Amino acid sequence: MTIRRVAIIGLGLIGGSIGLAVRENLPDLTTTGWDADGDVRAQAAARGLVDTVGQTPADAVRDADLVILCVPVGAMAAAAQAIAAHITPGTIVSDVGSSKRSVCEALGAALPEAIVIPAHPVAGTENSGPDAGFATLFRQRWCIVTPAEDTPQTAVDALADFWVGLGATVEVMDARHHDLVLAVTSHIPHLIAYTIVGTASDLEEVTRGEVIKYSAGGFRDFTRIAASNPTMWRDVFLSNRDAVLEVLGRFTEDLSLLQRAIRNGDGDTLFELFDRTRTIRRSIIDEGQDDARPDFGRKDH
Amino acid sequence: MTIRRVAIIGLGLIGGSIGLAVRENLPDLTTTGWDADGDVRAQAAARGLVDTVGQTPADAVRDADLVILCVPVGAMAAAAQAIAAHITPGTIVSDVGSSKRSVCEALGAALPEAIVIPAHPVAGTENSGPDAGFATLFRQRWCIVTPAEDTPQTAVDALADFWVGLGATVEVMDARHHDLVLAVTSHIPHLIAYTIVGTASDLEEVTRGEVIKYSAGGFRDFTRIAASNPTMWRDVFLSNRDAVLEVLGRFTEDLSLLQRAIRNGDGDTLFELFDRTRTIRRSIIDEGQDDARPDFGRKDH
Ligand SMILES: NC(=O)c1ccc[n+]([C@@H]2O[C@H](COP(=O)([O-])OP(=O)(O)OC[C@H]3O[C@@H](n4cnc5c(N)ncnc54)[C@H](OP(=O)(O)O)[C@@H]3O)[C@@H](O)[C@H]2O)c1
Ligand SMILES: NC(=O)c1ccc[n+]([C@@H]2O[C@H](COP(=O)([O-])OP(=O)(O)OC[C@H]3O[C@@H](n4cnc5c(N)ncnc54)[C@H](OP(=O)(O)O)[C@@H]3O)[C@@H](O)[C@H]2O)c1
Repeated sequence: MTIRRVAIIGLGLIGGSIGLAVRENLPDLTTTGWDADGDVRAQAAARGLVDTVGQTPADAVRDADLVILCVPVGAMAAAAQAIAAHITPGTIVSDVGSSKRSVCEALGAALPEAIVIPAHPVAGTENSGPDAGFATLFRQRWCIVTPAEDTPQTAVDALADFWVGLGATVEVMDARHHDLVLAVTSHIPHLIAYTIVGTASDLEEVTRGEVIKYSAGGFRDFTRIAASNPTMWRDVFLSNRDAVLEVLGRFTEDLSLLQRAIRNGDGDTLFELFDRTRTIRRSIIDEGQDDARPDFGRKDH
Repeated sequence: MTIRRVAIIGLGLIGGSIGLAVRENLPDLTTTGWDADGDVRAQAAARGLVDTVGQTPADAVRDADLVILCVPVGAMAAAAQAIAAHITPGTIVSDVGSSKRSVCEALGAALPEAIVIPAHPVAGTENSGPDAGFATLFRQRWCIVTPAEDTPQTAVDALADFWVGLGATVEVMDARHHDLVLAVTSHIPHLIAYTIVGTASDLEEVTRGEVIKYSAGGFRDFTRIAASNPTMWRDVFLSNRDAVLEVLGRFTEDLSLLQRAIRNGDGDTLFELFDRTRTIRRSIIDEGQDDARPDFGRKDH
């Protein structure tokens, strides 16, 4: 199975980055694209995110071997319905949504003739829209692919090769497990960051000016992820409810234990945890998923 | 009141950075230092963190106009007692501790003859020890000074000038208010980061390897601050208990509201918060306390 023509639906951060990464890494492929928003289509054409921006979803997906839906998770069903009548049976339809179980179901239902293979590149920034994408976003990052058991292996291999071509490493995983892993490594961290930034801005005794002024003490690291796309994240929490609530339950239990330790002056419990969490940081740096340099190595990107 | 000779007690990240910053910015001043740990003293001498590393606290503080205690908050009382017999009456004794109310009390009790002016430079990294310091750490950062009401203004001005000389901007604040502001902007963010990293590493259904692998989705930003010095942070939580528990209470209330919104599929509540928190991020960038560039501008440091 060979992919020659890729259609990208949704030309924001992730869709735009895929387009740019294809041009840089897989120049033999042709890219087309469409976005529901006319301004985004115009800007995508101006930046050259894809070779051709279509006027309709039908334009964009015509003759595509691979269609990738790069819209918020809550818009996946609508995006799939908009292309359903226009794709050739046997076309691979994939996506990049941050939760997978609900997307698997929505795409399967809307596209019975397609080979649906959901995927999630674990790479992003807090920016969004057609100006936010860049060609190296997926380099040295993981892309998780969650095929159904009966998906043809040749199609899974073709999609995996595509992502490897963009610089990613591919891991195949069950959709349910994906949703639990990402609840821990991404969804709950975002929820917590949003919450503390909200709490801080609502306190009467401490002004918002003070919070901003003294943010270098730790708070600013949270504000970065709490500046992420609200639509995208609303959809993530609504679509991955069960796993998010499960991990959140564990987190609040653990937080209660620390709260009690502080109340009781139990320094040993605090020290033991604080010492343990250090080793995890070292492993992340060793595995190249972050960097000990003061800039986190982000300028390599 | 002129400061000519500065003694630094505790030659780790903050003490070492003060020594290096004095040499770079205030070359007319003489610096001396001492640390309870012999290995740290040797390494401080090798790196030239101060002009002279004393063999005893008495050596280090002899003839000093300003003594700065740069030890963990829980060690402030001991450090103050160790110098009490060796300083000239009227010497300014300051510190850099991350909580201020308990330090004010400890220093006041141990040093009745000194002019005690507690302070807190809101600048740091997750690293510690005598190798971690650098001369530009305080540049463009705030230093909060919390004098008592009867502290001579000339002494407060002299200390403020010293910090301005190192590149910081000085703000005078009541110790109790400091502790509440920092609970929000620093202590609770650290507590939450430590907790989620601990929660993630304890889950049975998700391996630690998976957590590390997929950390680029948000988790890695938390691991950085959860790699901070365990002794320092244990002492912060024990010494700022009241303010930490108060802000933690608000945070957990707010988190419960979001938990309920997720459970009920209430997307509007989620969107409204996520949209609001974005504006705070923009203000932090506008005020120069963080940076929108992918490396957060950390290479400027
Ligand atoms: N951002 C990250 O860090 C990240 C990382 C990994 C995966 N993801 C996933 O990637 C997907 C896209 O996220 P993104 O960050 O690229 O968002 P984005 O920058 O906002 O781009 C999404 C684009 O899709 C458009 N759109 C919405 N509904 C549509 C529809 N029915 N048909 C066609 N276009 C539609 C949007 O237009 P409007 O703005 O006018 O609605 C927008 O231009 C999401 O599923 C997200 O979960 C994101
Ligand atoms: N790190 C930050 O981000 C940051 C930011 C602002 C303020 N602060 C405050 O700065 C202070 C120092 O923190 P740091 O990050 O510089 O820690 P650090 O790198 O661990 O340095 C502290 C040094 O003090 C030594 N020490 C401990 N007890 C002592 C005593 N009684 N007398 C003399 N030396 C003693 C320690 O030796 P041992 O290691 O052998 O115990 C260590 O070498 C803390 O109060 C902290 O709250 C830290």
